[in-house]
Amino acid sequence: MIEAKTATAKSVTAGLLVIGDEILSGRTKDKNIGFAAEYLTGIGIDLREVRVVPDIVAEIADALNAMRPRYTYVFTTGGIGPTHDDMTADAIAAAFGVEISEDPRVIALLQQWVKLEDMNAARRRMARIPHGAELVENAISKVPGFWIGNVIVMAGVPKIMQAMLSAVAPKLETGSRTLSQAIPAGDVAEGAYAAELGAVAKRYPDLSIGSYPSMVDGRFNNEIVVRGKDESEIAEAAAAIEAFLARMRKKRV
Amino acid sequence: MIEAKTATAKSVTAGLLVIGDEILSGRTKDKNIGFAAEYLTGIGIDLREVRVVPDIVAEIADALNAMRPRYTYVFTTGGIGPTHDDMTADAIAAAFGVEISEDPRVIALLQQWVKLEDMNAARRRMARIPHGAELVENAISKVPGFWIGNVIVMAGVPKIMQAMLSAVAPKLETGSRTLSQAIPAGDVAEGAYAAELGAVAKRYPDLSIGSYPSMVDGRFNNEIVVRGKDESEIAEAAAAIEAFLARMRKKRV
Repeated sequence: MIEAKTATAKSVTAGLLVIGDEILSGRTKDKNIGFAAEYLTGIGIDLREVRVVPDIVAEIADALNAMRPRYTYVFTTGGIGPTHDDMTADAIAAAFGVEISEDPRVIALLQQWVKLEDMNAARRRMARIPHGAELVENAISKVPGFWIGNVIVMAGVPKIMQAMLSAVAPKLETGSRTLSQAIPAGDVAEGAYAAELGAVAKRYPDLSIGSYPSMVDGRFNNEIVVRGKDESEIAEAAAAIEAFLARMRKKRV
Repeated sequence: MIEAKTATAKSVTAGLLVIGDEILSGRTKDKNIGFAAEYLTGIGIDLREVRVVPDIVAEIADALNAMRPRYTYVFTTGGIGPTHDDMTADAIAAAFGVEISEDPRVIALLQQWVKLEDMNAARRRMARIPHGAELVENAISKVPGFWIGNVIVMAGVPKIMQAMLSAVAPKLETGSRTLSQAIPAGDVAEGAYAAELGAVAKRYPDLSIGSYPSMVDGRFNNEIVVRGKDESEIAEAAAAIEAFLARMRKKRV
């Protein structure tokens, strides 16, 4: 069936824009990239690019405008709080060329949990939303993110970012999931299996096959990962890889 | 002294290009961004942008060509091993428009630790270096990175990347270090101190002042960080911040 084939091959893509001086200075070790990568892969959205930019409106807007035509979605994290260094909403409005002002929907939300005497200019600043955006629920601390065009704007605090991603996920278009199978290669050297692995990769051009070394106790510990949309193709390629690894291990004994 | 003043104000900048499908799929949680950010800040190089791109020559080359005119240095991590998915060296050669071929210096290095009968095409592939590049020492597993123009190419395995960064650091131009002072704000709400913090930030336009919420046991735990090149300015701004925080805490008691 052609229809099913098309649906299977459909690729939904994403870019991620991480906003914040604190990541670039090393003060904060980002946790959102790894989480978003795994989460999006899991729901059938392929993350294709990540950028980390400082708290500068022009830098945020430029990166966003470079990324949003390239991917189905662009997610942003960080810079939506009440302090002077939170400039994501303004940058998004600038990137889209739309107005930004206090959104009565957010004011209403804030009024549910901020006492009237505490409702100051800074807190009202969090209600500034670019015109035309939908709100993204924040189950943790109420102040919402927002969604404009194909851009989804989330908080930087990992717990809140994760809640916003969960809130928005059911509304996202998703493609066929990229599946993966990991094959431990242990201490069989990359240089020993590279030729055979390359041959398998060539035989399955629709799969993405990677070899990932890591170091454990000063020794290499390698893993091969086969990724793709077709489960049986992945299984075939994985079997071919297991076979040559077994042959190499045997040869060494 | 004008000379000293110029030296103090000198800003040396960097971009970081992380290469690898495994980061974008979430299979590997990147550790190099946080390490490089902290390390570079520590030696007086300001990291201004990070990009993560897949194992695709054109994507790597495009990102590199976008970044290298913008920063004093661009560091790359990943994609310099012996397997088919390692394409960083080719991408760098493409970006610079130079030839790439087996470098006798690397072959000589490989011959020191790879047995003659194990010296296959895959291992020789690691010796392919763009013409005009200097080698970057790898104290962990010997196969070097390289340095061409203002681009420094390092391995993706964190331990090896760190060794390469240490090897190259003494040869890098560095600027005045960005210093920082952290002021814990605890559970004083960002929305409560945002106006005063913004006023301090305005008073010290040469400093970068950030407010960073995190969540501990379901409660916000905020920290304010003052960053800049001038130690006494930082101390002044930090004192002003401590003062308004103390006033706010007192008011609540």
